[in-house]
Amino acid sequence: MDSQTPAYPVTYRNRLRRRHDRGHYDHATVHAILDAAMLCHVAYVIDGQPYCTPTGFWREGGTLLWHGSSASRMLRAQADGVPVCVTVTHMDAIVLARCGFNHSINYRSVMAYGRARLVTDPAAKLRAMDGFINRFFPGRSAVLRAPSAQEIKATSVVEMPIDQASAKIRDLPPHDDEDDYAVPAWTALIPLRTVVGEAEPDPRQHPDADRAAGGIAAYRAGRTTDEVFAETARLYEADPGDTEPGDTDRD
Amino acid sequence: MDSQTPAYPVTYRNRLRRRHDRGHYDHATVHAILDAAMLCHVAYVIDGQPYCTPTGFWREGGTLLWHGSSASRMLRAQADGVPVCVTVTHMDAIVLARCGFNHSINYRSVMAYGRARLVTDPAAKLRAMDGFINRFFPGRSAVLRAPSAQEIKATSVVEMPIDQASAKIRDLPPHDDEDDYAVPAWTALIPLRTVVGEAEPDPRQHPDADRAAGGIAAYRAGRTTDEVFAETARLYEADPGDTEPGDTDRD
Repeated sequence: MDSQTPAYPVTYRNRLRRRHDRGHYDHATVHAILDAAMLCHVAYVIDGQPYCTPTGFWREGGTLLWHGSSASRMLRAQADGVPVCVTVTHMDAIVLARCGFNHSINYRSVMAYGRARLVTDPAAKLRAMDGFINRFFPGRSAVLRAPSAQEIKATSVVEMPIDQASAKIRDLPPHDDEDDYAVPAWTALIPLRTVVGEAEPDPRQHPDADRAAGGIAAYRAGRTTDEVFAETARLYEADPGDTEPGDTDRD
Repeated sequence: MDSQTPAYPVTYRNRLRRRHDRGHYDHATVHAILDAAMLCHVAYVIDGQPYCTPTGFWREGGTLLWHGSSASRMLRAQADGVPVCVTVTHMDAIVLARCGFNHSINYRSVMAYGRARLVTDPAAKLRAMDGFINRFFPGRSAVLRAPSAQEIKATSVVEMPIDQASAKIRDLPPHDDEDDYAVPAWTALIPLRTVVGEAEPDPRQHPDADRAAGGIAAYRAGRTTDEVFAETARLYEADPGDTEPGDTDRD
């Protein structure tokens, strides 16, 4: 990796000990894997017991954010700067081979390390709540009923500046030991993909509801979630859709 | 839940504090969510630092198993009965609503708790290595080159009897506060599914390789991985495909 490429620092915690060829630490690779996802798994510890909780998340620069009920055990545990590990994984293919040992999975994953903390500043919290909507559905917050005081109170937002991260990628065809090509086991790569289905409109749709204003243009049936989430991340980065009092550029 | 239904014990660790209506502890629900997956995320702790590692896994009764390189930091850390949390998540749909607060995800997830330990008995380890193949590709181990002594040594297998587990399921259409139905935001449920693509045969396929004998009949293009993994789990449960010396039923 070029020393000029922005990258996460590599230490004991995130350095790949095996399969160095599959490891990446540069921002571009790490962020692309994160941005192709809506779901992450967060590992954290309460009284020595590890927990692994799935949750929706998003990225703002070098910070990951997620949210949940203020009553949630996970968010209470993460309020005070505890170490967490956030992992995102995409399974791309099953790789069949001629011996068990060479069976594999093609995947892209990121493990990101840092300390989680509550977003307590009211303006920052409100911006984050809108951000979670707009990051996946560009501009959608503008057509929604604004969050109520009760909803804001009931929601906790957590942010984790990424201290370290590593990406691990396997993107290879089947490969066997040379001698094993004499074994007549049928081998192949079986691709997997997660796709968007046809949207099922709410039966109570408002007669004036405008699908085009809903921020969901990217969600065309048959597209992969990879493509959709990466596209909406780019749109959000270009225009976070923040509103300030008196902001006339909202739409 | 009927007290006669086999279920995992509920304690502080796995009891759902919120959204009790989404919680399930019975074996049938928990196992169905686990069996619809090939990938899990495992949380564990090294020196107070939580790690969340994605890995392929499978289930044998009430025990989860996974494997990896004997040199892997994860497997070394998990050799000695440390507490782990294994989580499986399926994202089924994105749920749009008329305010940010009511946006949601339909999902099925399981968090399973227990202590991981190395499978050290040579026969059990070999059976597990074959089991990982046959659980996903019924009968496939019979057509593969058998594991070498070096491969067996280089592979660690970990098992975790499930002490406790909880399943959490959301499977609901969009729902808004009654007053919000006056808000003209376009709302819908956007289904997501992970599907199997057309297999890409190895360019170096053996001329005598028989696809039908490869244990991959379930992997027809267009099927969801949910269906495929659940089907192969049932086939494996009915016939684990174990071989013993002198076993003439192998095929």
